[in-house]
Amino acid sequence: MSDDRSAAVLAVDLGGTAMKGAIVTEFGRTVAELTRPTPASDVVAALIALFHDLHARATELDCRVIGAGVATPGIVDEERGVVLYASNLDWRDVPLLDALREALDVPVALGHDVRAAGLAERLIGAARGTDDFVLVPIGTGVAAALVTAGDIVTGATGAAGEFGHIPMVPGGELCTCGQRGCLEVYVSGAGLARRYATAGGDPLSSREIVGRLGADPVADRVWSEAVDVLAQGLNTLTLLLDPDVIVLGGGFSRAGDALLVPLTARMSEGLAWRERPRVVRSELGGDAGRIGAAILAFRAAGRGDVVAEWSAVGVA
Amino acid sequence: MSDDRSAAVLAVDLGGTAMKGAIVTEFGRTVAELTRPTPASDVVAALIALFHDLHARATELDCRVIGAGVATPGIVDEERGVVLYASNLDWRDVPLLDALREALDVPVALGHDVRAAGLAERLIGAARGTDDFVLVPIGTGVAAALVTAGDIVTGATGAAGEFGHIPMVPGGELCTCGQRGCLEVYVSGAGLARRYATAGGDPLSSREIVGRLGADPVADRVWSEAVDVLAQGLNTLTLLLDPDVIVLGGGFSRAGDALLVPLTARMSEGLAWRERPRVVRSELGGDAGRIGAAILAFRAAGRGDVVAEWSAVGVA
Repeated sequence: MSDDRSAAVLAVDLGGTAMKGAIVTEFGRTVAELTRPTPASDVVAALIALFHDLHARATELDCRVIGAGVATPGIVDEERGVVLYASNLDWRDVPLLDALREALDVPVALGHDVRAAGLAERLIGAARGTDDFVLVPIGTGVAAALVTAGDIVTGATGAAGEFGHIPMVPGGELCTCGQRGCLEVYVSGAGLARRYATAGGDPLSSREIVGRLGADPVADRVWSEAVDVLAQGLNTLTLLLDPDVIVLGGGFSRAGDALLVPLTARMSEGLAWRERPRVVRSELGGDAGRIGAAILAFRAAGRGDVVAEWSAVGVA
Repeated sequence: MSDDRSAAVLAVDLGGTAMKGAIVTEFGRTVAELTRPTPASDVVAALIALFHDLHARATELDCRVIGAGVATPGIVDEERGVVLYASNLDWRDVPLLDALREALDVPVALGHDVRAAGLAERLIGAARGTDDFVLVPIGTGVAAALVTAGDIVTGATGAAGEFGHIPMVPGGELCTCGQRGCLEVYVSGAGLARRYATAGGDPLSSREIVGRLGADPVADRVWSEAVDVLAQGLNTLTLLLDPDVIVLGGGFSRAGDALLVPLTARMSEGLAWRERPRVVRSELGGDAGRIGAAILAFRAAGRGDVVAEWSAVGVA
């Protein structure tokens, strides 16, 4: 007897503050979402509970669950399924894939959050149709998914893409990571807020600071410095990797033209003998990691073909 | 009747000052070398003449020529076989592969010089056994071959790996490329000599300047600045690409411990939360480009298998 319920996967984007879960059908539709705060301890147990509740909800919705996927931050060995290090989860060497496989009765996939988001942007988002691009989500911190010739760069130890921690100002401000002058000291939600307060501004969020541009000289100054450092960092990526397009995501990218106009102008000023790649905003935004986890889950379930179809029709 | 002469390829590393040619047998042995100065004009004709002379010499040596390969500088579209731009050859959009195919009666391969050198170091040089490494030749200028998961990064337009032109000092000294503060302004044979002379030193070559280290405060200072900038640049590569090993080549690397000891110390100081990759000197040195061209030629001739054997036995 065949099962004519539609096949679906359970996908979770695990972050330092929230676990964003969803049920995604084989047709690329998100039929339910379930987001919970990430607890201070026992994250693995909370994640498993979230998957179980998603599974129950999928059954109610008459979906046949064929796989599960999780996108996790940190340094991730995707082959072994181990999170080697994740500062905002206080994890070291957590064999997450094995833990999930034991708890769930469907095939499970584990991916790095930013690389999973890059995969999603490539298949159904702002990087459709290119094999060479960079996704740079700028939120509290900064990371990057680097895609060359269609492959996501993971590196020798799974630690590639640490764009937020490349040294931009030798001997500069101390970063939370322990290094000095990292890009994200200047270009991140947390960095912008801290630098604005240090420069004499009120304690505001980065979104509020962006709202004051043009009317508040301190806001203008720290923003301009952030744009300078980001332009220099993106030019470094451009000269090293020669991407076709740079996709900006995260809270910073919501500044829109206040970011894109000065940023692209300064990138062009810095490049003398080569074209600047296109710079665009993410299409999937905060959903990219979760959609990437769903894509990985369909692959783990042996159904990579359905994702190829989403790609063809541009389902998001 | 079978032809029992040994099969060989003709390989040329085309540079701004010299065209270094060789005949390389299927057993990985270089049986003859022929180097000529690169002419100021008609480079393609001179290159073809060199290939013809190499062919004649191969016949004298009783080698059966089955292919030819050239490694060329600049921005190279390897798929179409076109050199899009090469400043030191004054080339723009030169369809080199077609020109060579028309002139030579064997299969021809064209590759980017530094990427070809990276291929050679990976198969039979200092990067044997790793899929994630960076080759950084530092001569008159600086470039890089970036290898991730076994593939050389070429980028969307063939312009990847321009490590010498990443911005290291915002608003810094003007580079010959037209940009300001590029890495190779500080870290290159030409840059070191110019900075030494500007700082009041005699007009010396970079090799002579290195020879004065410890006895000449001006030499010590410009060298120290170069090492600082290089450490910062290699840490940027490390954080982005997570290589297993960084291979240094070119004239600069001949400084040996005077380079490697302070360089690795400063790289380690700059990295807080991850290990520094190994940093080693190139094993193939100035021959790497030519050996890479030979490897590409054997592949073009459908004999990639012989190169796999060199790799297994470590022939150089």
